[in-house]
Amino acid sequence: MQNSRSQPCSCPSLKLREVASMYFTMLAAFLVILVVALQGSAPQESDFPYKVPLDPQGLLELSWNVSYPEQAVHFQLLIRELRFGLLFGMSDRGEFENADLAVLWSDGHNSYFGDAWSDAKGQLHMDSQQDYQLLGARRAPEGLYLLFRRAFSTCDPKDYLIEDGTVHLIYGILEKPVHSLQAINVSALHGGLQRVQLLKPNISIPELPSDMKSMEITAPDVVIPSQETTYWCYMAELPEGFPKHHIIMYEPVVTAGNEALVHHMEVFQCAAQFDSFPHYNGPCDSKMKPDRLNYCRHVLAAWAMGAQAFYYPEEAGLAFGGPGSSRYLRLEIHYHNPLVFKGRRDSSGIRLYYTATLRPYDAGIMELGLVYSPVMAIPPGEHSFILTGYCTDKCTQLALPAAGIRIFASQLHTHLAGRKVVTVLSRDGRERQVVNADRHYSPHFQEIRMLKEVVAVFPGDELITTCTYNTEDRSRATVGGFGILEEMCVNYVHYYPQTQLELCKSAVDPGYLHRYFNLVNRFNDEEICMCPQVSVPQQFYSIPWNTFNRDVLKSLYGFAPISMHCNKSSAVRFPGEWEKQPLPRITERLRMPVPRCPPAPEPQPAAPVPLNLGQLRR
Amino acid sequence: MQNSRSQPCSCPSLKLREVASMYFTMLAAFLVILVVALQGSAPQESDFPYKVPLDPQGLLELSWNVSYPEQAVHFQLLIRELRFGLLFGMSDRGEFENADLAVLWSDGHNSYFGDAWSDAKGQLHMDSQQDYQLLGARRAPEGLYLLFRRAFSTCDPKDYLIEDGTVHLIYGILEKPVHSLQAINVSALHGGLQRVQLLKPNISIPELPSDMKSMEITAPDVVIPSQETTYWCYMAELPEGFPKHHIIMYEPVVTAGNEALVHHMEVFQCAAQFDSFPHYNGPCDSKMKPDRLNYCRHVLAAWAMGAQAFYYPEEAGLAFGGPGSSRYLRLEIHYHNPLVFKGRRDSSGIRLYYTATLRPYDAGIMELGLVYSPVMAIPPGEHSFILTGYCTDKCTQLALPAAGIRIFASQLHTHLAGRKVVTVLSRDGRERQVVNADRHYSPHFQEIRMLKEVVAVFPGDELITTCTYNTEDRSRATVGGFGILEEMCVNYVHYYPQTQLELCKSAVDPGYLHRYFNLVNRFNDEEICMCPQVSVPQQFYSIPWNTFNRDVLKSLYGFAPISMHCNKSSAVRFPGEWEKQPLPRITERLRMPVPRCPPAPEPQPAAPVPLNLGQLRR
Repeated sequence: MQNSRSQPCSCPSLKLREVASMYFTMLAAFLVILVVALQGSAPQESDFPYKVPLDPQGLLELSWNVSYPEQAVHFQLLIRELRFGLLFGMSDRGEFENADLAVLWSDGHNSYFGDAWSDAKGQLHMDSQQDYQLLGARRAPEGLYLLFRRAFSTCDPKDYLIEDGTVHLIYGILEKPVHSLQAINVSALHGGLQRVQLLKPNISIPELPSDMKSMEITAPDVVIPSQETTYWCYMAELPEGFPKHHIIMYEPVVTAGNEALVHHMEVFQCAAQFDSFPHYNGPCDSKMKPDRLNYCRHVLAAWAMGAQAFYYPEEAGLAFGGPGSSRYLRLEIHYHNPLVFKGRRDSSGIRLYYTATLRPYDAGIMELGLVYSPVMAIPPGEHSFILTGYCTDKCTQLALPAAGIRIFASQLHTHLAGRKVVTVLSRDGRERQVVNADRHYSPHFQEIRMLKEVVAVFPGDELITTCTYNTEDRSRATVGGFGILEEMCVNYVHYYPQTQLELCKSAVDPGYLHRYFNLVNRFNDEEICMCPQVSVPQQFYSIPWNTFNRDVLKSLYGFAPISMHCNKSSAVRFPGEWEKQPLPRITERLRMPVPRCPPAPEPQPAAPVPLNLGQLRR
Repeated sequence: MQNSRSQPCSCPSLKLREVASMYFTMLAAFLVILVVALQGSAPQESDFPYKVPLDPQGLLELSWNVSYPEQAVHFQLLIRELRFGLLFGMSDRGEFENADLAVLWSDGHNSYFGDAWSDAKGQLHMDSQQDYQLLGARRAPEGLYLLFRRAFSTCDPKDYLIEDGTVHLIYGILEKPVHSLQAINVSALHGGLQRVQLLKPNISIPELPSDMKSMEITAPDVVIPSQETTYWCYMAELPEGFPKHHIIMYEPVVTAGNEALVHHMEVFQCAAQFDSFPHYNGPCDSKMKPDRLNYCRHVLAAWAMGAQAFYYPEEAGLAFGGPGSSRYLRLEIHYHNPLVFKGRRDSSGIRLYYTATLRPYDAGIMELGLVYSPVMAIPPGEHSFILTGYCTDKCTQLALPAAGIRIFASQLHTHLAGRKVVTVLSRDGRERQVVNADRHYSPHFQEIRMLKEVVAVFPGDELITTCTYNTEDRSRATVGGFGILEEMCVNYVHYYPQTQLELCKSAVDPGYLHRYFNLVNRFNDEEICMCPQVSVPQQFYSIPWNTFNRDVLKSLYGFAPISMHCNKSSAVRFPGEWEKQPLPRITERLRMPVPRCPPAPEPQPAAPVPLNLGQLRR
C-alpha cells in the first residue's frame, strides 16, 4: 500500500456507492489539473515523427507517434482556423456512421472535449468509457494544438480497434456553436477522410555509406490539372553507361504547399528489351501517351501520403543501372485535387539514394496471390467474398535457396472491389506468421510498407494470400483480370537475396470450374446456356446468382485443386508438374491476437472535459 | 455527492494509482464486514423457491431464486458434510474444463471463497473480476449454508453467460486441505454435474377453481433396479365413464429420500382407437412389455428434476376423459441411479389437478420442426451442424383461426446428437420473437417449459426450428428417423385454443436430394455407387465426406424447396399442394441481445475472501 503519505481517512459508515463516487470525483479533479498543467508545454517536432494533412486545404494537420511498449498512439492535431470545434476520429472505411470520434466543441462561451461514437444513423453519443485522453491544448501563432492519446485497443465495443495497415481517419469542422454533443448533425458537417498507416513500424535506420549519392526523379514544373484526379506520367533517363548501383533508400520530394494534393508517386523502370523509349510529360491516360510506356512497370520506388523515407535493410539494395537494365524510368504522380484548384505548379517526385559500393545482396520483388485469370470470380451483391491465392510448398522447395529469403516490405494490390488483403506464412500445415495484413485495405492507398518484423521464408513453406471483396454495387460477376472492373489479389513482397522466382501464384483448376458450370446447369431449373465454346467470363455472367450457386462456388474454391504459376518471369515456369495441384492443408490457424485492454483502474468519467480556450472566433 | 458524512480526506499528493489501490482496499474491507454481518441471518425457505440435489447422495443441495429486475441469481448451497471445501459452477455442457467456478477451500486452518475459472486443461485460475459475490455463510445443524449471488451476464470473457434453457451445473468436493486455488487438481476431484433450468420464468399462478380435484398417477411401491439407468413403465386407468375434464395443473410426487434418483417422469394417454390396454408394471425396455403400450404416446404431463408444478393458463385446460379419449394412461419414470443403490423403494409419480368446470379453451399440442425422414442427415465428424424445420405461412394461413393461437409452453426434443434447439417466429419475412431457445440443450433433460411470455401466432406466421448437432464421435452419416442413433428435431408446443393442426414440419424435397447425390457422383473423382434403387440412408453412408460434399449438403438444405407436412394427425394432411414449397425468406434476423453488464463501479478485488468457518473436519 502506498497511501501512507496521505492523511488516514476514518470513514466508519462508508458504503460501496459512496466510495465509488468519491473515487470518480477525485479522478475527474486529477484530470482537469492535468489538462491545465500541460497547456504551457510545447512539444518538440521530433516527438511526432509522422505528419499528414487531413483536408485538401491543409487547415488540419495531424502529427503522431506510436508507442509499442504502451500500445498507444499520441496525436498532435494542429487546427489552423478553429471555428466552433471539430470532430476527429476513425471508422472502418472512412464513413461518419459507426465511427469512433474525439470531439472538441464550443457553445460560444465554453469549450469541451470528449470521446464520442456515432451510431448507424450518424447520431453522436458520449462514450461511457473515455478513451481519447486529452493531454493538453496549446495556442500558437499558427493555430491551436490539441494533444491526445489513444490506446490501440480499448475493449470498449463502441471503439475502433487500431490495427496494422490502413486506418481511415475522418474529420469534421463545426461552423456554429453547439450546446451539446448530441446536437451535432454529422450529415451537415463540412468534413472528409484521410487514409494513413497509423501504426508505422518501429525500425532502426540502417547506417548509410559515405559514398552515397542521390538523384531526383521529379516532375518538371507541371501545372496540376484542375480536375479531381490526375495520374501524371513523366519519362526520365539514367546517364548513358550508368553502371550497376544499389538503391539503398528513397524519400518523397513534395513541392511546398502541395502536401495535400500529391496523393502518391511511383518510379518504374522500363523493360530492358527495348533500346530506347520516347520522352513524355503528360497525363497517363492521354491518347498522346506513347504505347511503349506500358512496358515501364518494374517498381523501383513507391510513396504514398503519410509515408516516410524507405530504407533497404543493411545487407541489401535494389539493383539499377548496368547491362541488362533499362536506362529509362517512368515517374507517375497521382494528384488528388477535389477542390479543383487552378494553376497550381508542382515539381514533386522521388529522391533516390544509391551507392556504387554494392551491398551483399540484390533485393528482389516477388508476386504472391492469384493469377490474373477469369476463373477466379466474385458473384455480384457480395458483402465480403474471399478469394485465396497460394504459393505452395512444392514451388518454394524448388525455387528458394536452402538458407531461405527474408521478406522486409510488402505492397498489397487489388482493384476497386478489394477491402482486405492478408498474407500468412504456413509451415508443415501450421500457420506461423502474418507476412502483411490490412483489414481496412483501400485500393486508393497502395503503399510499399516496411514490415514490423522481417519474415524468413524457407524451401517448403507456403504463402497464402486472401483477398476480401465487396461487390454489393455490382449486378454481374466480377472476374479476375487486368481491367479496372476486373479484379486482382496480389502481394508484391520485397525480399533478399534475389532469386529467380518472380511469381508464385495460383488459380482454380479450369477442369473443376467446368464441372461447376455443369453442376449449375443441371442443378438449377433455370435454363442457362453454358456451351463450352462460350468464354469463362460469359459463363460467369450467365449464372443465376441464387444462394446455392454462390455457396457452391465458395465450396469449389475451398476444395478444388489448383493450377500453380511458379515462374521465373511472367511467362517462364520452373520445370515440374503445376496443374491439378492439391490445396495446401492447414491444420492449425493463427489466432487473432486478443486485444490487450488498458489496465483496470484507468477509466475516465463519461463526462466532457472543460477546456479554457478563450473566446472562439465567430 | 454523498460523502459528506465521511471525514474529508486531504490528499494533496495523491496519484491515480494510489487512489485506485485505496479504493480496492476499502472495498475489500467492506466485503469482509458484509460476510461477518450476514453470518447470523437465516434466510426463509420461500426466499429460494427452486431446489435441486447436486449429487446422487444428496449431500449438496442447491436452492435459488431469480431476480429479473436485478438480472441476477441468488444461490443458497447446503453442504451437509463439509470436508475441505468445494467447487460449484457452470460450464457449456457440464465439463470441468473451461468452467466458471465459485470455490470454497481450506488450508486446514483458514477458509477462503473466490471466483475462479478453469482453462482448457482444467487448471484453476483466480478470476480478475469476482462475480460470484459471497453474501453470507451460516452453520446450521444440517450443514453449512453458503449464500452467493451471480449476475446473469458479467461481461468477463472467462465467465459463463446464464441464459434461458438448460444450465449444466458442476460440483466437486475437496477431500484434502489445499494451500491455494492453483493447487486444486480438478481431474482428481470427486464431482459431477446436474442439469437445471436456472432462469425459471416469473409467472403469476392462475387462480384455481373451488371444485378442483386431484388424482395421483404413481408407481406402486417399485423397487428401483440397481443399475444406472431405468425407464419404468406403469399402466394406470381412469374410472369407467369418466367424463371430460380439464387438467389445470400438475405437480411431482417424489418419495422422500429419492429426490436424487427420480430424474424425470411423464404421463402419456393411450390411443383412443383401442378399447383396452393390458396392465403392466415393469421396465419399459423389458421383453415382457406388451407391444400395445407403444400406442400410449400422447403427453398429458411431464416433469424433470428441478421443475416445479405446471399450471395451465387461466383460459385453458388439457382435456381428458369423455368420449373419444382413452381411459388408459402410461406413467414412465426415469430412475438415474449411478451409485447403484440396492433395494430402494419408490412410489413417485405425478399428481394431476383437474376440474369438471371446463375452461373456455381446450389446450393442444403441436409438433414443429423436422419430419422424421432420412432425407435430413448430418455428416459424421461435425462439431455443430445445423438442420432447420419449417412451419410455413401457407400452413398457418390454412390451419390457424383468424384470432390466432397462444403458445404458453414448449418441450424440445432431439436424440443423442442434439446440442441446441431454437424456435423463432417470423412474420412477413422478419424474425419477431424467440418461441423457445435452449443453447445448452441436452437430450438427457427434456422438460415441458412454461414460456416467459406467451407467444401469439397468427395465420400467415412462420415458425422456424433449428437444431444443432454434434457428430464428432461418429464415423458415418446420421440420418433422420425414430432410432436412437438417428436424429429428430422437434419442438412440442403447448397452446390454446386447440386446432386441428397437430403437425407442422418439413423436410428437404427428395428430388433435390437426388440431384445432390448425382452431383456428388459426378463431381468427386472417387467412384461411388449411388444407384437409385439404393435407400437414402445407404446413399448417405456411401458419401466420401470431403469438405466439398459437406459444404454442398449445407448449401442444399439452405436452398432446396421443401416438402411440408401440414397435418391434422400424423397421417392426414390439410388439403393443398405441399410438395416443392419454397423456403421461407428471412429478410431481417433477430439480434442476439447484447448482455447487460454489471454497472461500472462494482468490481471486486481479484483476491480470495477469508471466511471464519472454524476448524473443518479432517
